[in-house]
Amino acid sequence: MRGAVIHAPGDVRFETVDDAKILKPTDAIIRTAVTCVCGSDLWPYRGAEPTEHPHPMGHEYVGFVEAAGAEVTAVEPGQFVVGSFATSDNTCANCRNGFQSSCLNREFMSTCQAEYVRIPNAQGTLVAIDEVPGEEYWPGLLAVSDVMGTGWWAADAAEVRPGSTAVVVGDGAVGLCAVIAAKEMGAERIIAMSRHEPRQRLAREFGATDIVTERGEEGAARIKELTNGIGADSVLECVGTAQAMRQALHSARPGGNVGFVGVPHEVAVDGQELFFSHVGLRGGPAPVRRYLPDLIERVLTGRIDPGKVFDLTLPLEQVAEGYRAMDERRAIKTLLKP
Amino acid sequence: MRGAVIHAPGDVRFETVDDAKILKPTDAIIRTAVTCVCGSDLWPYRGAEPTEHPHPMGHEYVGFVEAAGAEVTAVEPGQFVVGSFATSDNTCANCRNGFQSSCLNREFMSTCQAEYVRIPNAQGTLVAIDEVPGEEYWPGLLAVSDVMGTGWWAADAAEVRPGSTAVVVGDGAVGLCAVIAAKEMGAERIIAMSRHEPRQRLAREFGATDIVTERGEEGAARIKELTNGIGADSVLECVGTAQAMRQALHSARPGGNVGFVGVPHEVAVDGQELFFSHVGLRGGPAPVRRYLPDLIERVLTGRIDPGKVFDLTLPLEQVAEGYRAMDERRAIKTLLKP
Repeated sequence: MRGAVIHAPGDVRFETVDDAKILKPTDAIIRTAVTCVCGSDLWPYRGAEPTEHPHPMGHEYVGFVEAAGAEVTAVEPGQFVVGSFATSDNTCANCRNGFQSSCLNREFMSTCQAEYVRIPNAQGTLVAIDEVPGEEYWPGLLAVSDVMGTGWWAADAAEVRPGSTAVVVGDGAVGLCAVIAAKEMGAERIIAMSRHEPRQRLAREFGATDIVTERGEEGAARIKELTNGIGADSVLECVGTAQAMRQALHSARPGGNVGFVGVPHEVAVDGQELFFSHVGLRGGPAPVRRYLPDLIERVLTGRIDPGKVFDLTLPLEQVAEGYRAMDERRAIKTLLKP
Repeated sequence: MRGAVIHAPGDVRFETVDDAKILKPTDAIIRTAVTCVCGSDLWPYRGAEPTEHPHPMGHEYVGFVEAAGAEVTAVEPGQFVVGSFATSDNTCANCRNGFQSSCLNREFMSTCQAEYVRIPNAQGTLVAIDEVPGEEYWPGLLAVSDVMGTGWWAADAAEVRPGSTAVVVGDGAVGLCAVIAAKEMGAERIIAMSRHEPRQRLAREFGATDIVTERGEEGAARIKELTNGIGADSVLECVGTAQAMRQALHSARPGGNVGFVGVPHEVAVDGQELFFSHVGLRGGPAPVRRYLPDLIERVLTGRIDPGKVFDLTLPLEQVAEGYRAMDERRAIKTLLKP
């Protein structure tokens, strides 16, 4: 079979790779319906994370069950399934606590930009949809498997409540999905921080009521201005840089919350500053599995359409161009069709 | 009048100071009923915070209203009052959000180890008790003004819930009060981390079900052992050192919470580590004012007795000995009587 392999920063190739096969009785194999490139894939692509040897890429997927291991009874061949980028048995203590992305048997997906994909922990990870959904729903369901689930987690971790004010730091696909989540959770005011016109437009379409173009301390000062000098109830940090985290912490009101969902790169939080800010802080890899049934339903009923974050669709074999377009900010997010 | 003045590390004197008087129409003056020495007073006493010039000390108080400024209508001379170490107008946006210790007009108390004390923002800060309570309640009410309120906040910030497991890091007066708070909030299992026998005893009396004597990584490993390898639902960090914060973060389960209430000294939290831990973190100066009516009632009805943290009582004029006893860990907390 064929799939994407990164060889070095800027060098992603579509080539022949080992066939996906069942290695454990808890695995399943899916035939990829659609997959995509994630903002976090750009860390190694840009050399911000090392690539010590060539390896497959991709952690987002929806597809058709091709085969299921002996212990996998929840799904069967032919079914259309959605899963999370973090696999989980959905039975351990952490899973039962709703933190499936800290499952004791967690394996992160990493080979999804390919024609077929092995899914570990398939029983706990995959959610089957009764009837195969129309292709128009595939992008939304694919978004649910990662960026929409992560945006939802940002809003959940930041404790967005009905009538509250939410700020979204980051206008990538996760940030845009975080706007959807804040809206669905009832935020009255949603301030998107973005200086890119097409992303601003999508943020507004998703429910943003205000756009702030300033960044860093200026951005935080602008948020204070817009919130009677106090700061926002909830800040959804969807980037992962030190600047974004500072901006988020300085934008929240005392007693407010920052949910941070971008994997932090060289971020340190000063204890005394956090203390006197009175801001609550929670982040981590999104427990997408917890949200899947609910989010799938919201997509299939047309209540939300996170698939709109895909503004470029390419054949899977053009995956390299998909990376380039996102790296150069020509695309928010690239959908790949095998 | 006379009061405590710190001149240098280890050098606290009881001497003549300026009389407390009304400076603003929002002030009140109280005659001190009892006051005390706080664990945080030991930071400058031990030289961990600089003392650049001699200044008064103390931020805990209960007393009798002696005089009230023109704008203070909520209390009147002769009444017995309890307040917080952080004064607040109780009307600003942060106060209305329940974070009175981030009041826009906040002034921290700092002159309370004295015969009389000026209370800024008296209207919003002081809670009067209808009848003067018996002297046996004064220590408990004094504890409520700071250490008990702070322990309560630790449990609140760490989201202690009925049936949960709570760990308390720190066996000072705040940590011991945090045990009371965890118990009152319904924690089923309360693990106190302490290696001092008299403090262990008091922790058990207050509701601790387990004692862990190990510290640092060993301590965190022991907590994991006691919690099926997962970690605790809530960890109450009542120290403020880098070691205590690490121990706390490593003791919480994924999805659990750390409430940190000791003023952090040289504490930095690694963003990526916090991310992958899935632990929520919230701290700050306790919003004691929010809890005062409830905690006063719990003390006056005998439901809790945080006054037991005072294991040394001295005349106010012996305040220097009160510091020494705490510095040398001969006393958990020193009560001072004018």
